Amino acid sequence: MSKTAEILCVGTEILLGNITNTNATFLSQELSLLGFNVFHHTVVGDNPERLAQAVDTALSRCDLLITTGGLGPTYDDLTKQTVARALGLEMELHEDILADLRARWESRGKVMTKNNEQQAWFPKGCTIIPNDWGTAPSCAIEKDGHTVIMLPGPPREMKNIWNKYVAPMLAAKQDEVLVSRYCRVVNIGESALEDRLYDLLKNSTNPTVAPYAGGGETMLRVTAKAKTREEAYAMTIPVVQAIADECGDDLYAVDQDCMEQVVVELLHELGMKVCTCESMTGGLIAGRITNIPGASDVFECGLVTYSNRIKHKLAGVAVKTLDEHTAVSLETAAEMAQGALALSGASVAVSITGVAGPDDTPEGEVGTVFVGLAGPLGVRSAKVDMLRSRDRAYNRNLATVKALDALRLYLLEIKRDR
Amino acid sequence: MSKTAEILCVGTEILLGNITNTNATFLSQELSLLGFNVFHHTVVGDNPERLAQAVDTALSRCDLLITTGGLGPTYDDLTKQTVARALGLEMELHEDILADLRARWESRGKVMTKNNEQQAWFPKGCTIIPNDWGTAPSCAIEKDGHTVIMLPGPPREMKNIWNKYVAPMLAAKQDEVLVSRYCRVVNIGESALEDRLYDLLKNSTNPTVAPYAGGGETMLRVTAKAKTREEAYAMTIPVVQAIADECGDDLYAVDQDCMEQVVVELLHELGMKVCTCESMTGGLIAGRITNIPGASDVFECGLVTYSNRIKHKLAGVAVKTLDEHTAVSLETAAEMAQGALALSGASVAVSITGVAGPDDTPEGEVGTVFVGLAGPLGVRSAKVDMLRSRDRAYNRNLATVKALDALRLYLLEIKRDR
Repeated sequence: MSKTAEILCVGTEILLGNITNTNATFLSQELSLLGFNVFHHTVVGDNPERLAQAVDTALSRCDLLITTGGLGPTYDDLTKQTVARALGLEMELHEDILADLRARWESRGKVMTKNNEQQAWFPKGCTIIPNDWGTAPSCAIEKDGHTVIMLPGPPREMKNIWNKYVAPMLAAKQDEVLVSRYCRVVNIGESALEDRLYDLLKNSTNPTVAPYAGGGETMLRVTAKAKTREEAYAMTIPVVQAIADECGDDLYAVDQDCMEQVVVELLHELGMKVCTCESMTGGLIAGRITNIPGASDVFECGLVTYSNRIKHKLAGVAVKTLDEHTAVSLETAAEMAQGALALSGASVAVSITGVAGPDDTPEGEVGTVFVGLAGPLGVRSAKVDMLRSRDRAYNRNLATVKALDALRLYLLEIKRDR
Repeated sequence: MSKTAEILCVGTEILLGNITNTNATFLSQELSLLGFNVFHHTVVGDNPERLAQAVDTALSRCDLLITTGGLGPTYDDLTKQTVARALGLEMELHEDILADLRARWESRGKVMTKNNEQQAWFPKGCTIIPNDWGTAPSCAIEKDGHTVIMLPGPPREMKNIWNKYVAPMLAAKQDEVLVSRYCRVVNIGESALEDRLYDLLKNSTNPTVAPYAGGGETMLRVTAKAKTREEAYAMTIPVVQAIADECGDDLYAVDQDCMEQVVVELLHELGMKVCTCESMTGGLIAGRITNIPGASDVFECGLVTYSNRIKHKLAGVAVKTLDEHTAVSLETAAEMAQGALALSGASVAVSITGVAGPDDTPEGEVGTVFVGLAGPLGVRSAKVDMLRSRDRAYNRNLATVKALDALRLYLLEIKRDR
C-alpha cells in the first residue's frame, strides 16, 4: 500500500503573499514520482502555537512529513524545536556543526553572532543532512513509524538538498514507482471529454486518469503505479490508446509540451517552411512558433497585417474582397494565406482574422474568427469555433491555439498523403 | 481588532504538483490589503472526507474562509455541497442559473450535458456571485458569525470575480480603506532600486512601499490606509513623487498596467502609427501592442523577418550588411527599422534582432540583442543591456520589454520636442 506524505511550509512571508509557495509544487511532484500519496499541503507562519498544532495534526495522519522553512538563525525559526516537542524528543547540540558554522564566519573575517548557534541544535537521534548551499543544515527523524524531514525555506537550498540527499534516501525505501503520461486534447471541452470518457475517468484506479482544462486545451494525465518504471509505463499504454481512439486527431500530443512544438516537429519532418499572416492575434502565432528552439529552420516569416491598407498592400487581399466581405470573412482569411505564401516563398501559410474584443465591430461580433491555409493542398479557410467571451487576451489566445491546430491538421493531411 | 481569514484551496492537481498554488498568493496579498490576518493556507484534493474535515477545521478558527476550486461540472467538484453540510445547510437549485447555462450551450449550437446542472445548485440562503469569464458561478454564505466565499479554481476567473465583486464587498465592511498605487520601473533592478530608495522602503509604515520584480521590470506598490479613499490617496502623493524624482524616465508608468499601454497612449497622443520588424522576438512586440484595445488606430503592421532572406526581401536589409556585420548587429537593426518604415508607410518603426538561446550562434552569444528605431528623429540603433540567461523564453520576453521601452523613449523625445 502507498504511504502518505504531507507538506508543511513554515513562513509568514507565504501567508502575506510576498512569495508563492513553489516549494510545495516541487515537493509534490517529487513525492508523486516516488509513489507517495500527498493529501495535504499546509502553510503556517512563524508562530510557535500554530506551528505545534500543524505538526501534531500532520503527524496524526501521514507516514512522511516534509517541512520547509524555519531552520535559520533568527528568533522566529522554530521548526526543529517544535517537531522535537511533538515527537517527545530532547534537543542536543552538535559540536562539530557548531565548529563548522564558526569556521564559515571566520573565513569571511567575521565573528559569529550568538543566535547562529541554534543552527547546531537538533532533535536527539536525528540524521543530519548537509546543506551545501546555505548555513542551516537539514535533518531527518524516524520515530513511532513516522519520518519527518526538515528542509530549509530558500528553494535553491531546498532543491539541492532534496535532489542530492533526500530523494535517493526515500527512493531506496519505496517498493513502487509512479509513471505519468500527458495526453493533450483540443476542440473537446473538459466536460464533453469527461462525458465521452466517463467510464475511463470514473473507474480509473491504476492507472488513474484526470482531466485539466486551460488555455483552450484539455490535458488528461494518466498515472500508473507499479514495482518498476517499465511495468508502470506498460500499464499506461492501453489507457492512452483508449483516449487516442476516442479523440482521434483532437488528441494532438502525448508526452509533448505544447501545440507549437508538435507543429514545429511536423514541419521539420515534412521539410517545409511556414509563414504566418495575422490580424486579430497580432503576432502571437508567430511568437508561439518561434519560441521553440530550432524554429528558425522551419519558420520563414510572419506578417501582422493589422490595417486593411496593409492587408491589401502586403498580403495582396483584393480591395473588392475587403469591400464586399469585410476584413473578417472566409474570403479575406483565404486571400491573406494565399498572399503571404506568395510574398514569403514559404511552403505553407496560415492566416487569421477576427474580432478580439472587448467590443463588437462593424465587421462582426466579438469572437468571430476565420482561419486560412495555403500550401500544397490548396487554399482553404474556415470559421473557428470559439467560446463566448469578451476578454480580448483570452480570445486572442484561444484563436492562436485554433490557428496552430488548423495548421497542424493541414500538415497531418500532407503527411498522410505522402 | 483585525479579523482572521483562511485560504482553503481544493484540487488534486495542486497536491500532485501539476500546478502551483498562485491563487493562495494572490488572495493572501489581497486579504492583507483589506486588513485581514491570514494564519493558514490549506490544500486538499477532490476528496469528500478530507475536504469536509478541512472545512470544519478552518471554520473552527477563522472569521472568513475563502475557498478556491471544486465549483465545476465534474463529479469530483464537491466544494459547495461540502461547505453546505459543514454549515448545516441544504442545497437548492437556481432555475435562472440553469436556464442561463443552457442558453450558453445552445448559443454554441450544443446541448448541455447532464453533469453541468450541478453548477446551478447552491447552499440555501447564499448570495450568488456571477462568473463573467467562466461557467461556474461563485457564492458567499454568512452563518453563525462566519463568512465563507467560494471561488472557482482557474486563476483568471477567480481574480476577475475577486476584483469585481468580492473585494468591494469585503472592503465595504471594513472601517478603514486601503488605496494602492503602482509605480512601474524599467532598467533599474530590484536590489539597485532598493538601495536607491532605502529610507523610503525601510521606514515605510503608512503608506507602505513594497517592491516586486518580474518580467524585466520592477514594480513598487505604495499602499496607504485611512478612513476615506480620498485621504488615503492624498497620503500616497508625496511618496509617488519621491519615487518619480529618484527614477526619472525609468519610472515608465504610475497606475497604468503595462509598457505597451503607455506606448499605445503616446502614439494616440502624437497621432502616429507604428510598425514593428522583429527577428529574435518573433512577433511578441506586435503581440503585446495589439493586445491593447484600440491598438488598431496606432498599429499599422508587423513584420517577423526571421530568415536573412526575408530580412533582405521584406525589410530591405542590404546583403552586404548581413554579410559584413551579420544579422545580429547595430547595422542590421537600423536597416530593419528603416526598411519596415518605408514598406509600411507607418510614422515610426521599431526593430529587434538578437540571439534568444538556449545556444550561442555564429552571430553572437545568447543575450546579444540590438534594437533599432526609425521615424521623425531619424534612424538609430543600440545594443540592449540584457541579464545573463540561457532561457529562451526569458530572453525573448526581456528583449520585448527593452524594445518597447526604446520606442517609448523615442516617442517621449518627439513629444518633448513639439
